[in-house]
Amino acid sequence: MTELTESVSRMIHEFEKLPGLGKKSAERIAYHLLKLDKVEALALADSIRAVKENVRYCKHCFNLTEGELCEICKDTRRNQTILCVVEQPQDLIRLEQTGRYDGLYHVLLGRLAPLDKITPDQLTIAALVERIRSGAFSEIVMGTNPTTEGDSTAYYIIGQLESLPNKPKITRLARGITAGGDLQFANMEMLADALSERQEMR
Amino acid sequence: MTELTESVSRMIHEFEKLPGLGKKSAERIAYHLLKLDKVEALALADSIRAVKENVRYCKHCFNLTEGELCEICKDTRRNQTILCVVEQPQDLIRLEQTGRYDGLYHVLLGRLAPLDKITPDQLTIAALVERIRSGAFSEIVMGTNPTTEGDSTAYYIIGQLESLPNKPKITRLARGITAGGDLQFANMEMLADALSERQEMR
Repeated sequence: MTELTESVSRMIHEFEKLPGLGKKSAERIAYHLLKLDKVEALALADSIRAVKENVRYCKHCFNLTEGELCEICKDTRRNQTILCVVEQPQDLIRLEQTGRYDGLYHVLLGRLAPLDKITPDQLTIAALVERIRSGAFSEIVMGTNPTTEGDSTAYYIIGQLESLPNKPKITRLARGITAGGDLQFANMEMLADALSERQEMR
Repeated sequence: MTELTESVSRMIHEFEKLPGLGKKSAERIAYHLLKLDKVEALALADSIRAVKENVRYCKHCFNLTEGELCEICKDTRRNQTILCVVEQPQDLIRLEQTGRYDGLYHVLLGRLAPLDKITPDQLTIAALVERIRSGAFSEIVMGTNPTTEGDSTAYYIIGQLESLPNKPKITRLARGITAGGDLQFANMEMLADALSERQEMR
């Protein structure tokens, strides 16, 4: 017999399913919520419900939005001729935070991962190809992650764009040593990238 | 401009308030919930709501319950003459898990902590004293935490029981070295307890 009430056990069980939370952290959160003022605890519950009810993917780029189009697609001041392809909405946010990019985005909602059974049709690749085919982009920036899966996804997309009559220039995010890093702790792959893509100093 | 939608930002903000979760973990959870099937995400929201709507404190012992009395207070097979005083419902659960105790409990819902402005009237001490005064307990086991605050709370309660005509025997949980531990890593306080409360081997 567990001495927790059924509702509390169920809530702990639900929290345990969240990434990064184990049994202990779920229990700690549960006891915190038990003690918390009802209004504040329900604010958490309601915020989850609001997200699931209001948030969807942008019709154009699959970024998160609460309307038809996301803030970026709606912003006509942005450069409409350059498109950055990213895996997830959070990658887009990161890139936006740099303040160095003013073009449009396309969110794949994942990356190709045959081992996890993630195939092209589970991503937004078809929509991306159609968007480029019927658009007027001069450059596509591959902003997938610098991993085997991210790279394969980028190469797969490049393959799909090959036959387009209006195939734009394709670039990828620069790779090399990280600002503020230390060469002696850099991994071999990073150093190899840094050497083979070395830049002219101006 | 943040690129998150308002609902998502609000949800991340709510998760950030939970113990042990920082901005990064709250974001990770948010992206997980965004991707999750709506029914499953709402199961989490609903479990929180159910707890806040159904769970209350047992009228007798202040353990968690969904009725008037908790499972332990309702169980007439338990030893009604021994009462273990603990700080929190989770301490009660821990003790129950040992399977070594079959008496009743009293949950203080905290411990005295003058620095945090937690005074006797914020705990269930008055109810405890009344329960012992009008009851027929032969032993009270102090199960407060082995900390300065837990100890002060226990001594404060003992002081309150002093004047009762039917003052029961008062014990506390044994202290000493922990099973499976290693003497060389034991702290001084633990070893001092282990020496001064050394037990006869039988």
